[in-house]
Amino acid sequence: MNRFQLIEQIQTKKSFLCVGLDIDLEKVPEVFLKEEDPIFEFNKMVIDQTQDLCVAYKPNTAFYEVYGSKGWDSLQKTIEYISDKHLIIADAKRGDIGNTSGRYAKAFFETMGADAITVAPYMGSDSVKPFLDFDDKWVILLGLTSNKGSQDFQHFQDEKGKKLYEKVLKTSATWGSIDNMMYVVGATHPQQLKEIRELLPYHFFLVPGVGAQGGKLNEVADAAFNNDCGLLVNSTRGIIYAGGPSEGYEQRIRAAAQELQSEMASYF
Amino acid sequence: MNRFQLIEQIQTKKSFLCVGLDIDLEKVPEVFLKEEDPIFEFNKMVIDQTQDLCVAYKPNTAFYEVYGSKGWDSLQKTIEYISDKHLIIADAKRGDIGNTSGRYAKAFFETMGADAITVAPYMGSDSVKPFLDFDDKWVILLGLTSNKGSQDFQHFQDEKGKKLYEKVLKTSATWGSIDNMMYVVGATHPQQLKEIRELLPYHFFLVPGVGAQGGKLNEVADAAFNNDCGLLVNSTRGIIYAGGPSEGYEQRIRAAAQELQSEMASYF
Repeated sequence: MNRFQLIEQIQTKKSFLCVGLDIDLEKVPEVFLKEEDPIFEFNKMVIDQTQDLCVAYKPNTAFYEVYGSKGWDSLQKTIEYISDKHLIIADAKRGDIGNTSGRYAKAFFETMGADAITVAPYMGSDSVKPFLDFDDKWVILLGLTSNKGSQDFQHFQDEKGKKLYEKVLKTSATWGSIDNMMYVVGATHPQQLKEIRELLPYHFFLVPGVGAQGGKLNEVADAAFNNDCGLLVNSTRGIIYAGGPSEGYEQRIRAAAQELQSEMASYF
Repeated sequence: MNRFQLIEQIQTKKSFLCVGLDIDLEKVPEVFLKEEDPIFEFNKMVIDQTQDLCVAYKPNTAFYEVYGSKGWDSLQKTIEYISDKHLIIADAKRGDIGNTSGRYAKAFFETMGADAITVAPYMGSDSVKPFLDFDDKWVILLGLTSNKGSQDFQHFQDEKGKKLYEKVLKTSATWGSIDNMMYVVGATHPQQLKEIRELLPYHFFLVPGVGAQGGKLNEVADAAFNNDCGLLVNSTRGIIYAGGPSEGYEQRIRAAAQELQSEMASYF
């Protein structure tokens, strides 16, 4: 999916919602556990309930790898089930020496068919660039993450007060373009989100941390919504576990996504 | 495998060799391509030829993920084939928010049965600590990597001249101990390797970059060999592709590992 197609979807759906698909089998309704592939069946239900309300899905690979090759199959099937009207983000946080990053790019963009992959910046340019060699595919580089540990190194600063995450954003933006790079910027830092929008006015930001992690949608939109929207706001636990264990879970999951989408619609 | 057992293996074998298992099917002898699981069969042959000469094996997940769930099966079978006399390192460079890192830890230490996993430090303490909650398992954190891109961010420095990789090493060393943390320090930086050994006198370092990437074994050992050895020096392409495509590849692979082990023996 290219930038034009993504913006088209956002405007049509009046939504910049990304639904995280990080399935914990201990938290899904019991009825799914009887299925041959419970993760895929649960994902299918979530996708059916939310696809008109969101523009992206983001499965995190950890929640599939924990089940070995069976989990990897569930991930593959999930990605195949998602329509081409959604940006499919493999939240994998990969990154390695060039030769190896090239393999990861092939794994996620070709074998798996994802549109985008999250990448960790620590190893620098040659660990990121191999992901940029694919048409209509995206690197979503970690900028300022939503977790507490983001304080440990991302705020490390030079003699002029420039922080590591600012250096990462500014340097890496020269490796690609607004057509193939986005950044992860956590919703838990609205003030920094605003400053980062000034630094990178045109890039899309993938914003995790709304909901369970404490970030607020209105603060995120006020800080970083731009002319093309420029935002993908992710919610995982607040949607996929909104259904609870008992009957009627489909409607409750849909309602949780609908609530976020309705709030998003007010920005168009 | 715990620290005591690792050191015992090193002293018995007079070796601190780690063999990288990053299989590219375009580079293996044709005879393997006829097998049902060519990657596993090739790995099996490499392991048979090298197991008395090395103390660790390090499959890099990218080279398996590129084949989807089939590749994940090959990785699982490879890990099961390796004896308990070797440290099994999943070179995965993972790291995510705490909840998710916990899933990765389960995936690699429990589902897959690896002894150690490489982890990227960018997301800080809560992305690393979940990996430290497992007995006799290891985090191998990226410190100073062997690639050119290590210059981009790892050398970012504060007003006192302290570099990011030094900050990462010093801060993260307080999260675990010499019994459950090691560091990746590239062989391509012998001078820094020496300084890092002064900073962390007792930790094991996993040193990639010998061979194809230009690092030299004697420079690594001179810079960082300590009383317990304290080193795992990795060679991948220099061993697994030493056999070439034609008959006699087993002997040539063994000879390549033997050459490194013989040089290593002189340090005991």
